[in-house]
Amino acid sequence: MNLKNKKAICIMSGGMDSTLGAYMVKEMGYEIVALHFNYAQRTEAKELFCFKKICEALNVSNSYVLDLDFFSKIGASALTDKSIDIPINGLEEGVPITYVPFRNGIFLSIAAALAEKEEAVLIAIGVVQEDSSGYPDCKDSFITSMEQSINLGTKDETKIKIYMPLVHLSKSQIVEHALRLNVPLELTWSCYKDEEAACGVCDSCRLRLNGFRLANAKDPIEYM
Amino acid sequence: MNLKNKKAICIMSGGMDSTLGAYMVKEMGYEIVALHFNYAQRTEAKELFCFKKICEALNVSNSYVLDLDFFSKIGASALTDKSIDIPINGLEEGVPITYVPFRNGIFLSIAAALAEKEEAVLIAIGVVQEDSSGYPDCKDSFITSMEQSINLGTKDETKIKIYMPLVHLSKSQIVEHALRLNVPLELTWSCYKDEEAACGVCDSCRLRLNGFRLANAKDPIEYM
Repeated sequence: MNLKNKKAICIMSGGMDSTLGAYMVKEMGYEIVALHFNYAQRTEAKELFCFKKICEALNVSNSYVLDLDFFSKIGASALTDKSIDIPINGLEEGVPITYVPFRNGIFLSIAAALAEKEEAVLIAIGVVQEDSSGYPDCKDSFITSMEQSINLGTKDETKIKIYMPLVHLSKSQIVEHALRLNVPLELTWSCYKDEEAACGVCDSCRLRLNGFRLANAKDPIEYM
Repeated sequence: MNLKNKKAICIMSGGMDSTLGAYMVKEMGYEIVALHFNYAQRTEAKELFCFKKICEALNVSNSYVLDLDFFSKIGASALTDKSIDIPINGLEEGVPITYVPFRNGIFLSIAAALAEKEEAVLIAIGVVQEDSSGYPDCKDSFITSMEQSINLGTKDETKIKIYMPLVHLSKSQIVEHALRLNVPLELTWSCYKDEEAACGVCDSCRLRLNGFRLANAKDPIEYM
């Protein structure tokens, strides 16, 4: 397939996974439309700052920052409701309180609308199924089903593929892959807390640090 | 099934179809959580006014009004981009310019998040497949696929059914049904234009008026 002028919508949080995903899409030759969501998450300002830096480094052709303040009215997650503490004692069984109800369903639906407007053929999302927090909206069965829903619910001429290159990678494989592609990991933010440096003890920090440890690499960001 | 205390999220625009849908859900015995979206559509203020009046008449147990301003950044529709005129010469072949990219996919995804938070078991949406504008996100195949996606992408204990009672009804059947259930049609707004009275010539007004005509009934709202 000739990818010249083929557009991909890359959903990018400013974190390690979605940044690697976007670099992989770039390597495949797509023109990148970067899409970032402010969804009333604790680390909104930090993630947005990282997203912008990454967009520069990646030289995207266009970027959208969309405000989804309504997430605060839904709440029901430690990420979007500040009255719920971020767990710091390590991952436990079941869906953690940091799960944001159907977040990726909402993100993919909005990305689909943007893809239809931009005539993009690909939506990239950095979901990781194993070696992650166990969020139900990060499973490949769900993403595959959403791809079908999106193609059924848009115009006949709109044909969208959802690309989830990390879904079955471990965090250490993600780190190795990112290092190989020279992804600027120093620009990424994964921590669930909104502090000067990453906390190192929330689930997201633990997963990230463990990935670096197993990859025998040093995480370039600062920790408390 | 005992529906006592069973909650349903009813997506309600303030229009005739979704209002009838909500009344049908009420008649089935569900507790109703009304959900309205401001999505930068031309008739935002009018629809919200109607929604509030209908919520009072329907005696809903809870209601949410969520702002989706980002639709204006996506645009690509005469409803969300004021530089595109609303067509007034009658329905033509194909998907009309009033189609808002993947609107119902976005609405259903957000409704799913709310259903998960509220522990609701049903989401009602007033889509009409035939006798409508031909929007791809109003087809039953799409809605059924979204139901599957939503159940795959939410917690195991979350089980959501999407109810689309009008999908295969004609507009005249909708009018007849609404009259039978004493739906306060005088409180509903369907017109795509934001004027004092309904225009009578946009696709939505034409479909509505034709429904009343075929049902041998008089539309109680005012037309220009």
